[in-house]
Amino acid sequence: MAVNLEPPRPEDLLSISGVRLGIARAHIRKPNRKDLLLVALDEGTRVAAVFTRNRFAAAPVIVCREHLADKDPIRAIVVNTGVANAGTGEAGIEDARATCVAVASALDIENSQVLPLSTGVIMEALPLERIKAGIPACVADLGAGNWASAAEAIMTTDTVVIDGSTITVTGISKGAGMIQPNMATMIGIIATDAAVGADALRYLALRVAAQSFNAITVDGDTSTNDTLVLAATGRARNPEIVGEGTAEFGRLAVTVTEVAQLLAQAIVRDGEGATKFITINVDGGASRDECMRVAKSIAHSPLVKTAFFASDPNLGRILAAIGNAGIADLDPARVGLQLGDVTVVEHGARAATYTEGEGKRVMKQAEIAMRVSLDRGVEAATVWTCDFSYDYVKINADYRS
Amino acid sequence: MAVNLEPPRPEDLLSISGVRLGIARAHIRKPNRKDLLLVALDEGTRVAAVFTRNRFAAAPVIVCREHLADKDPIRAIVVNTGVANAGTGEAGIEDARATCVAVASALDIENSQVLPLSTGVIMEALPLERIKAGIPACVADLGAGNWASAAEAIMTTDTVVIDGSTITVTGISKGAGMIQPNMATMIGIIATDAAVGADALRYLALRVAAQSFNAITVDGDTSTNDTLVLAATGRARNPEIVGEGTAEFGRLAVTVTEVAQLLAQAIVRDGEGATKFITINVDGGASRDECMRVAKSIAHSPLVKTAFFASDPNLGRILAAIGNAGIADLDPARVGLQLGDVTVVEHGARAATYTEGEGKRVMKQAEIAMRVSLDRGVEAATVWTCDFSYDYVKINADYRS
Repeated sequence: MAVNLEPPRPEDLLSISGVRLGIARAHIRKPNRKDLLLVALDEGTRVAAVFTRNRFAAAPVIVCREHLADKDPIRAIVVNTGVANAGTGEAGIEDARATCVAVASALDIENSQVLPLSTGVIMEALPLERIKAGIPACVADLGAGNWASAAEAIMTTDTVVIDGSTITVTGISKGAGMIQPNMATMIGIIATDAAVGADALRYLALRVAAQSFNAITVDGDTSTNDTLVLAATGRARNPEIVGEGTAEFGRLAVTVTEVAQLLAQAIVRDGEGATKFITINVDGGASRDECMRVAKSIAHSPLVKTAFFASDPNLGRILAAIGNAGIADLDPARVGLQLGDVTVVEHGARAATYTEGEGKRVMKQAEIAMRVSLDRGVEAATVWTCDFSYDYVKINADYRS
Repeated sequence: MAVNLEPPRPEDLLSISGVRLGIARAHIRKPNRKDLLLVALDEGTRVAAVFTRNRFAAAPVIVCREHLADKDPIRAIVVNTGVANAGTGEAGIEDARATCVAVASALDIENSQVLPLSTGVIMEALPLERIKAGIPACVADLGAGNWASAAEAIMTTDTVVIDGSTITVTGISKGAGMIQPNMATMIGIIATDAAVGADALRYLALRVAAQSFNAITVDGDTSTNDTLVLAATGRARNPEIVGEGTAEFGRLAVTVTEVAQLLAQAIVRDGEGATKFITINVDGGASRDECMRVAKSIAHSPLVKTAFFASDPNLGRILAAIGNAGIADLDPARVGLQLGDVTVVEHGARAATYTEGEGKRVMKQAEIAMRVSLDRGVEAATVWTCDFSYDYVKINADYRS
């Protein structure tokens, strides 16, 4: 069960001029699944990416970093599911490189112009021959209209007019499992036809990741493979957006962030066993970082998450989680907590007006927002998460079977 | 279900000269439970304590700290279950003080000679009148032989000969729920008849907590109330142990630590829904702190915990948890992992000799030890934890009902 919003209809997903996608069934881990995706980017496209901070970064992440640092522009992204190619040592890096060689050869580009992305189980070798065998099918399938087919579930699209040009932004994502701060998505690909300078695009990728994929958490585990790729083809022919402080950059950033947030929130809604979608707003912090720490301490607490699953207003667990956020000089007597429209805590203690019945009423809802006020500064942060159900245990205990 | 060792037989639990315990049914949250414990300490007893680092420390913790800082020695400990008296603001502190007044009056000691401890649900007021009404029953019940009755489940005892005197150490604990680093027990009380200097006792309490209650975790949540109290009555009449570097201190520390570790491990074995007891040894670290971080990152990962529940050797999840421990300069290529007698990872990748069958064989055991080698220093740390089952969700979703 998931607390999913209606995804956009496939026919509503806008294609991006300069981007073609091709999908194949390469039988990577299980037969007859769409498990190989090739994204071909036309000449002139700029690409920026943000990766997991897990020290056991997967082999494809290491190769992606190399290729992004190379002088040749990225022209292709190859994504496989089923096997993460993480915890695979030098052999895994060779496999990721060999995947790039196969794609480069098929598209007549350089090896370093390919970004390889993988998601799936850790510590197993990539089935290289099956991946190589699947690449021609991906190439044959390449088309601008394949976004929905590539995404299957998590996808979104938006437009914005900048300098008189209609800019389109479309994104897809693969989520669930090992979802946490610092690249909570497994794989996210967002493309736009805007013309954006290289530095501005890199900055945009970081900023967008911080406010979307790095602000969601399902289970507190950060994957070895998490990657957000942002591609800008320039085909909208708008005057190139170069400055990070310009109004044009701001307008583009808002749209790309909204697309990324919808993708990221969809991952949470689709979280393993999720029955509730929970928004945690923390304000009044001395820094954005401490607000994030408080929000994630709440979002990661199994006791808080099981209370939401049970619709049990055992809200002292939220206070305990706030107290565990590692803010050494936090004054509990200043802390406030609102759950939906109900004031639960004032000055660090149960609010005089609070009743369990009111708490229960909010806890029963499928979409719950809470606000924690630290009353020690002006910074704020938002995290999106879900509850913790029997099905989380079931799905993760059965994941490989 | 719990993975419990056989607890000691009540008749094997040694009493401590100078310590008497009394239990009452005060109907604090539910009727007819043993929910109030009074521990009376004879004159000359020294007491040290270690408390939760949660910033939402409960009212009794705040009052305990005040009373320990006072010049009058501690002569009584009063423990209630059912209501934690946390998230209760100034009124909660008044309630904790009033509890001390009632105990002091009944025992004819000063208010500041009482340590109040509470455990239970957060953000509810202590039923002060019922607690006051229960204290006379506790006093009437006071006896040196009541350790097992006070503990009910989690208790242990040991002796050591120091300077020709037989020293006895007996401990009891209430655990489960909100169990994490930095005072993982709800309430632990350990008493010895050894004569120990005040400074040495304080140091001993810190050292023992670090190697026992602060080295266990069930769900990563640190309670608002966690407290370890260590009392030394001096009735064994050994020459007072004053220096932390002496052989006598060392012998006492080993025995008290063993008692504390047995209590702490019992809390994990008794963890909500636990079906497996997991020992995580991390060695080769540059500091003990980083070894603890790696061990706790593994112990807190819901994906690792559900894999243990399922006996599924999806051991890449352990690598991902190691990579998430926040050691910025960790070299994955040096990391090794052994599970029981099976080498799983060498040089950061799957060991050539490893087979899933071997992994599965170990994962099926009820007691599992793993060893993570970081190969970057000489420090080490050990953490004890349990798996994550359907029952964890069930118990915590139903906790208050």
